[in-house]
Amino acid sequence: MTDSADTPPTPRSATAPPVAGMVGAGQLARMTSQAATALGVGFRVLAGDAAESAAQVVAGTWLGDYRSMADLREFAAGCDVVTFDHEHVPGPHLTALEQDGVHVRPGAAALRFTQDKLAMRERLAGLGIACPRFAPVRDLAGIQAFAGGSGGWPVVLKAVSGGYDGKGVWVCETAAEADDVLSHGIDLIAEEYVPFERELAVLAARSPHRQGAVYPVVQTVQRDGICREVIAPAPGLAPGRAAQAQELALRIAGELGVTGLLVVEMFETRAGLLVNELAMRPHNCGHWTIEGARTSQFEQHLRAVLDLPLGSPAPVAPAAVMANVLGGDDADVYDRYIHVMAGDPAVKVHMYGKPVRPGRKIGHVTVTGEDVAELTDRARRAASYLRWGKEDGE
Amino acid sequence: MTDSADTPPTPRSATAPPVAGMVGAGQLARMTSQAATALGVGFRVLAGDAAESAAQVVAGTWLGDYRSMADLREFAAGCDVVTFDHEHVPGPHLTALEQDGVHVRPGAAALRFTQDKLAMRERLAGLGIACPRFAPVRDLAGIQAFAGGSGGWPVVLKAVSGGYDGKGVWVCETAAEADDVLSHGIDLIAEEYVPFERELAVLAARSPHRQGAVYPVVQTVQRDGICREVIAPAPGLAPGRAAQAQELALRIAGELGVTGLLVVEMFETRAGLLVNELAMRPHNCGHWTIEGARTSQFEQHLRAVLDLPLGSPAPVAPAAVMANVLGGDDADVYDRYIHVMAGDPAVKVHMYGKPVRPGRKIGHVTVTGEDVAELTDRARRAASYLRWGKEDGE
Repeated sequence: MTDSADTPPTPRSATAPPVAGMVGAGQLARMTSQAATALGVGFRVLAGDAAESAAQVVAGTWLGDYRSMADLREFAAGCDVVTFDHEHVPGPHLTALEQDGVHVRPGAAALRFTQDKLAMRERLAGLGIACPRFAPVRDLAGIQAFAGGSGGWPVVLKAVSGGYDGKGVWVCETAAEADDVLSHGIDLIAEEYVPFERELAVLAARSPHRQGAVYPVVQTVQRDGICREVIAPAPGLAPGRAAQAQELALRIAGELGVTGLLVVEMFETRAGLLVNELAMRPHNCGHWTIEGARTSQFEQHLRAVLDLPLGSPAPVAPAAVMANVLGGDDADVYDRYIHVMAGDPAVKVHMYGKPVRPGRKIGHVTVTGEDVAELTDRARRAASYLRWGKEDGE
Repeated sequence: MTDSADTPPTPRSATAPPVAGMVGAGQLARMTSQAATALGVGFRVLAGDAAESAAQVVAGTWLGDYRSMADLREFAAGCDVVTFDHEHVPGPHLTALEQDGVHVRPGAAALRFTQDKLAMRERLAGLGIACPRFAPVRDLAGIQAFAGGSGGWPVVLKAVSGGYDGKGVWVCETAAEADDVLSHGIDLIAEEYVPFERELAVLAARSPHRQGAVYPVVQTVQRDGICREVIAPAPGLAPGRAAQAQELALRIAGELGVTGLLVVEMFETRAGLLVNELAMRPHNCGHWTIEGARTSQFEQHLRAVLDLPLGSPAPVAPAAVMANVLGGDDADVYDRYIHVMAGDPAVKVHMYGKPVRPGRKIGHVTVTGEDVAELTDRARRAASYLRWGKEDGE
């Protein structure tokens, strides 16, 4: 941990609030800007293009390339703290910024575990945290040996970092499929395919002062590899297991020296919880907190990286359901949007200002209340209508 | 009503959402921008200066003078609908914009009743709506005659439009005080001084399609002529009287052809409700809706002026208390802010990015929950600490 509690960000004048800079200008930065406006802190985004989701709305938009050290340096010069809406800034650039004296939060040492899946697996294994069995693999023989030693096919292959064509995870049913993935020539790890009962996620926050806060455990529902729904709290989760999941997230945040948000995605199996993925930024699994919790994940991330006292993660309703809105075939979302608002005046619609492409996340909807079945139905209907112009399109 | 349901705003392309333009860039525009970001509609503000509250955060900031017809025309040319965060745009300019074919919401005919207090009183009286007794007055003899006929002194004098030195209402105990107000040479009306039990406010919305929605009646607490606290819903208000107040607001919105929000400020007296003031924009009495209602007043205003279906005005908690944060003697609010967040992790702090001046509204805090006494205490402590650096400063 290179960023200690001894060096809180100092506003540049006694009367000006600090400036948080977020590298990346997607929907996460866009929604973070709403929280920054309420907090009254300065907020900048580093966007690759003025048409990006956050760049459309944030006055403090800087255009630049997150892969360029010069652009990062220029951006950081106007910020009291630099944070991220994605994990793609090259690690050496992060380290260089820290050596410049920039408050990078989360720091390079922590972010590495979101950029290098092998490092993450090895670190969690070293901490004795239950994960799927894994191994670095270089060729088909290695994958076949892994399958032989860990329950056979299917085998999950993951890009150690990045991926190709926007994809980084492949569930391979056969050696032929694995060979196909190998053909792309990227570094891979193999993981056992976990026959999970469901997927859970825990959102925690940790500040440089080492204050921690954790939200209720949620259930995430994926279809075709895309998160479709999040139910908060996870229905029917045993209290002991929920507490275990929350403790695990806080422990990982501490062990890895995270500042800001940490998301721990988990598989719930009959035998217990296995950690699947980590993220250190606002995350799709926390969008429900905008309406469903005292402190939204976006405000919490800002509070954490600015070393402000963390906000209450308590829910404000017995249940919340979020559904992602994916693009359909018709680009005119606005017309369908009116129908959704008329049909359910209490559904909260969040649109990201992104051009519609089939299957792309272009927004989300959230409903809060008491009855999870009713809320799920309402959220699905709204998301389906926004995509297809009908309420049972998926 | 010059803006009918037959002419909804048409987005400039089939795939782009409409653009709402707000004249004025104070905190109301700033908070409206957060709602526009979620809705995914375009949002612009017309600011006099790039340092203004909304101009600090809104990417679509245009600099110009709301008193300049040329500036208004240029601003309106990029907007599908034009609305306001204050009522100071000259009436003839509003009419000219409408004649240009601009969707001005609320329209000039409705806004007139927020710009001309005599016209407002005469219109409400014509509708048979209970108001304080009033009369236009030109000189001391006229004021004395009004006092003689309406219960004596004190007499309330109000500027028919505008005011001077930021003030538009004077409670005069004596003829000498009234003479002092007359000396400024502005048009005045006299109103009887109402010995009210408390002040209430109702926030309603009306769309060009004539859909209406009304929030729970709130109690507003003023000190030294400044709104200090808002309690939602108004504690102990008789259900019949609450319904009467809500019906009154919806009726006025319809009769005056309001599109957007309408705030009706009322006096509650032993004899019943008297209408005090009207506003047709987001208003301090509705800030609690950000956390306390399904649809914030800012989202509701946008939905109304864009002729979208209105959102649910239902509260999300049994009670909400908002307290305004006024400037104190020390400009370094940020340092005190950290203390407030540490002391009450569930208080929601909204800062407006305005330089601190003693007595100036620079932010607000909201708490939601069940026990009004506890919520009021928490809101007051937070607002007091932000002003004075102590919890019992006022």
